[in-house]
Amino acid sequence: MTRSHYCGQLNKSLDGQKITLCGWVHRRREHSRVLFLDIRDREGLAQVVFEPDNAVLFEQADKVRSEYVVKIHGKVRIRPEGTVNPNIKSGEVEVLGLSIEVLNAAETPPFPLDDYAEVGEETRLRYRFLDLRRPEMAEKLKLRARITSELRRYLDDTGFLDVETPILTRATPEGARDYLVPSRTHAGSFFALPQSPQLFKQLLMVSGIDRYYQIAKCFRDEDLRADRQPEFTQVDIETSFLGEAEIMDLSEQMIRRLFQKVLRVELGEFPRMTYNEAMRRFGSDKPDLRIPLELIDIADLLQSVEFKVFAGPANDPAGRVALLRVPGGAAMPRSQIDDYTRFVSGFGAKGLAWIKVNELAKGAEGLQSPIVKFIPEDRLQAILQRSGAQDGDILFFGADKAKVVCDALGALRVRIGHDFNLLTADWAPLWVVDFPMFEAGDDGRLAALHHPFTAPSCSAEALAENPLAALSRAYDIVLNGLELGGGSIRIHQRAMQQAVFSVLGIDQDEQQAKFGFLLDALKYGAPPHGGLALGLDRLVMLMSGADSIREVIAFPKTQSAACLMTQAPGTVDSTALRELHIRLREQPQAA
Amino acid sequence: MTRSHYCGQLNKSLDGQKITLCGWVHRRREHSRVLFLDIRDREGLAQVVFEPDNAVLFEQADKVRSEYVVKIHGKVRIRPEGTVNPNIKSGEVEVLGLSIEVLNAAETPPFPLDDYAEVGEETRLRYRFLDLRRPEMAEKLKLRARITSELRRYLDDTGFLDVETPILTRATPEGARDYLVPSRTHAGSFFALPQSPQLFKQLLMVSGIDRYYQIAKCFRDEDLRADRQPEFTQVDIETSFLGEAEIMDLSEQMIRRLFQKVLRVELGEFPRMTYNEAMRRFGSDKPDLRIPLELIDIADLLQSVEFKVFAGPANDPAGRVALLRVPGGAAMPRSQIDDYTRFVSGFGAKGLAWIKVNELAKGAEGLQSPIVKFIPEDRLQAILQRSGAQDGDILFFGADKAKVVCDALGALRVRIGHDFNLLTADWAPLWVVDFPMFEAGDDGRLAALHHPFTAPSCSAEALAENPLAALSRAYDIVLNGLELGGGSIRIHQRAMQQAVFSVLGIDQDEQQAKFGFLLDALKYGAPPHGGLALGLDRLVMLMSGADSIREVIAFPKTQSAACLMTQAPGTVDSTALRELHIRLREQPQAA
Repeated sequence: MTRSHYCGQLNKSLDGQKITLCGWVHRRREHSRVLFLDIRDREGLAQVVFEPDNAVLFEQADKVRSEYVVKIHGKVRIRPEGTVNPNIKSGEVEVLGLSIEVLNAAETPPFPLDDYAEVGEETRLRYRFLDLRRPEMAEKLKLRARITSELRRYLDDTGFLDVETPILTRATPEGARDYLVPSRTHAGSFFALPQSPQLFKQLLMVSGIDRYYQIAKCFRDEDLRADRQPEFTQVDIETSFLGEAEIMDLSEQMIRRLFQKVLRVELGEFPRMTYNEAMRRFGSDKPDLRIPLELIDIADLLQSVEFKVFAGPANDPAGRVALLRVPGGAAMPRSQIDDYTRFVSGFGAKGLAWIKVNELAKGAEGLQSPIVKFIPEDRLQAILQRSGAQDGDILFFGADKAKVVCDALGALRVRIGHDFNLLTADWAPLWVVDFPMFEAGDDGRLAALHHPFTAPSCSAEALAENPLAALSRAYDIVLNGLELGGGSIRIHQRAMQQAVFSVLGIDQDEQQAKFGFLLDALKYGAPPHGGLALGLDRLVMLMSGADSIREVIAFPKTQSAACLMTQAPGTVDSTALRELHIRLREQPQAA
Repeated sequence: MTRSHYCGQLNKSLDGQKITLCGWVHRRREHSRVLFLDIRDREGLAQVVFEPDNAVLFEQADKVRSEYVVKIHGKVRIRPEGTVNPNIKSGEVEVLGLSIEVLNAAETPPFPLDDYAEVGEETRLRYRFLDLRRPEMAEKLKLRARITSELRRYLDDTGFLDVETPILTRATPEGARDYLVPSRTHAGSFFALPQSPQLFKQLLMVSGIDRYYQIAKCFRDEDLRADRQPEFTQVDIETSFLGEAEIMDLSEQMIRRLFQKVLRVELGEFPRMTYNEAMRRFGSDKPDLRIPLELIDIADLLQSVEFKVFAGPANDPAGRVALLRVPGGAAMPRSQIDDYTRFVSGFGAKGLAWIKVNELAKGAEGLQSPIVKFIPEDRLQAILQRSGAQDGDILFFGADKAKVVCDALGALRVRIGHDFNLLTADWAPLWVVDFPMFEAGDDGRLAALHHPFTAPSCSAEALAENPLAALSRAYDIVLNGLELGGGSIRIHQRAMQQAVFSVLGIDQDEQQAKFGFLLDALKYGAPPHGGLALGLDRLVMLMSGADSIREVIAFPKTQSAACLMTQAPGTVDSTALRELHIRLREQPQAA
């Protein structure tokens, strides 16, 4: 039954040869009583020609419709001058059809596959098995397979052992809600699906596995505001006896090689930047370094002005006052400023002050702004000077709690970078290091900025004394403004792990109940260890130029965590629930 | 911090070189005032020597205990004549310790790792992170990683695309109970964890992916009588446009190469045998061909005897009468026969008739048996002749419903094969083909012998007319009497799929509700396709010589589906359950 070639493999070197294709009718058309069928398979398209001189064959071929599955035997020939199609791989040749067999018929699909225009995502997901037929979708799945294969080879070849860790496991506190699985054999108990293999990979280090990796499924039952999925895939790595510099080097080399091999792109050495510097210069711990704009702090210039909007945050130790200069931005219309004002309000900013620098030489006269009148002339000059403003620029201001200013101006920076086509490179990788260990919630409770197994760079005593001052041995990898992954050196000493748990308000009993096995493991000879996890979906998305991770997942779920194709989740019968020792609180509601 | 070498990498070529090791103190002993530390890491052991002339260093080294994590700097030297240790890879050399750093201390582990005797499995699983430190366990994990890596490379290199399919999906009827995951966003609805990616891989064929593979986690909530796990891993393969012979060839080649590369074993060509032949000759659809014994049918010789135990089944169309000849077995004591009788009763046999052939020349006189008196002389001679009995043999008889005889004598054959060391080879692979499509349950209802997506080798009409006579296009792969995996050509036409569903008693409405997406997919141009799934855990178990799949899974669960290390499953708080729209039926019961 087998094909001799994929459609995309046909080329001039096969001229005159007889070949067999198996695939789908992508497009059919008749021209001057000749029938042209474009046949499609995973590797591309090929044009097959049926001429009217063989009436029986022509009639057979004439019956096929779009998306019929056919097997065609034919002879490769060079296309006549002027009919070469440079858009397809086999475009220099065509196949003279010698026989055609219909392997399966097809009804007209719910959306056309040959001319894919504006099909709604809902329809695409419902008929994902058709959507994936589109060459651009097939390319994404092929790229994904290529990427995982290259990553695996690199890791296999550098001594990492692929070890599978359980999917049915115990809840661990990694910040998000767990998916739970009721146990049939242990009434009232539940498995949790792992948010990551974090503790298992640490235990593998305690086991002496030394270098572990896994391309691991992870699960988070979150509200899917952003581009998230209930299940996602991470390239999960852990090593023993290496420090952060070595782990970062190794990971960086892996990514650099991947880009070389798959995209023929040289990423070069990744810059390293502290968390503080990233927040200060870019308002973000995952700055997009392709955008040349930076935040400029001006609180020190505004502490004594009367304008409360600036003076308040400028005098608040938790406040920040900063500006973002957009070269040439003074030309933007008021409607665009209004748009940006709405945009930053989404990040909690109460407004967006601005100054258009029309003509510096004219002093305050040359500025256009709702706020200049509130700022003394000398302050204004100091601000303009520090910002490096030139005629034609616009300055946007943020003045609020530091978090709000960072979030708002940080996001505005990226937005403007794209709106004004300011991107200076295709790829901008970056390591961010020296994160704080903890962040305080609104209720004053401390939470781990990464996870509670991250090692601090200070002693247990210093940590207990001033936890908010403690830095962690964590490192995040950022690519084009997206957090691609992150890792850390982990705690390998029991006392330190207990100190961190205590700072997080987990008392001894709870420590023992939830993490007894980890604390046990740390007392029987745990080696120094650390690792990294990369978001595979995001990596493939970036490398394929897709807009969403849903484009690089074969069967993704919607924002409401449903699969439109299989109609999952679905209802189950009451016997099954009884066996699981649970009942419903209310009447079922289908997905 | 890094090591320069793994312990197992040290050898004579490094004589005189300074090296750094990182690992665990496996064993310590003093001899003539010299301290010997055996250091262990993933790749083996190395002996480090501390001599008393450097008192400070000796004192430091003398403080370490078993399982301490240490970093040692030292100089490689050839061991003195007579002290070479051929049992370890680095046994020709030792390391003169120049410095030692304790990276972490260790309490005395709950069981010794250097002299692993009879530690109960429960303790091993509770402290799995220590159990995995044992070199034989590390070797199994390394072998597993090697096997998956080789399989992936083979499949990558032959055009298969690794595609991930969802873990949170919809229940599909593959015979076993599903693990269910309550949905938070769709009250009263549940995801199911996949029993296999079966439907997704078929949909990928409909998508034109052409060649798919995945090393996929699968889940079955079964009672774990045999050597099963709630989650297991399969090498999952699907192809389009290939027939069963081509898929079998391809899979066979993959396994043959794997054995060549990993074990340096030549499996040769795999024999192919029909289901009927396997049942007839071996009483099993997964015969262990290393055992030379075969079942011999004798019903035709016994239809007219008065002995009802034989005559009943001999005249029952659903019955079977067969014998198993064990060469040299007449010497076995009565106690062993009693033992075998108990053994076969576990398979439903009501007894185990036997004849010891002491001296053929003496006729009935030369036979020892509780049953010869019930069998006419000519019948007895015919039986002896057909069995090929020789002096010193024993014949065991089965007479019952065919299923009972097959199960009982089939299992006895394997048991005796091992008890009498009859195995003729290390490896005996086999394809079993031409399975029935359906089997009838005790209630007369038909069930699919494989799964309902398996293509029959007859037309839809013939199938509907006499489903029990229909054969499937399935093929199972058997290795040493274990079902290693199986596959089939799938149904690619909607009408055939509906015919199979109808035979299984699934009406139109249920077909649409449960399999609407599959039936949809089949109508939009599904290609002919088929595939295979191999049990990875079993494959690794066989290749590593382990007794149980638990030995080749890093963190396995017990027979009651619990993880003794993490204490999963565990209780969850009522808020979490409320969010999931469920409540417990009874009070929780911890694992």
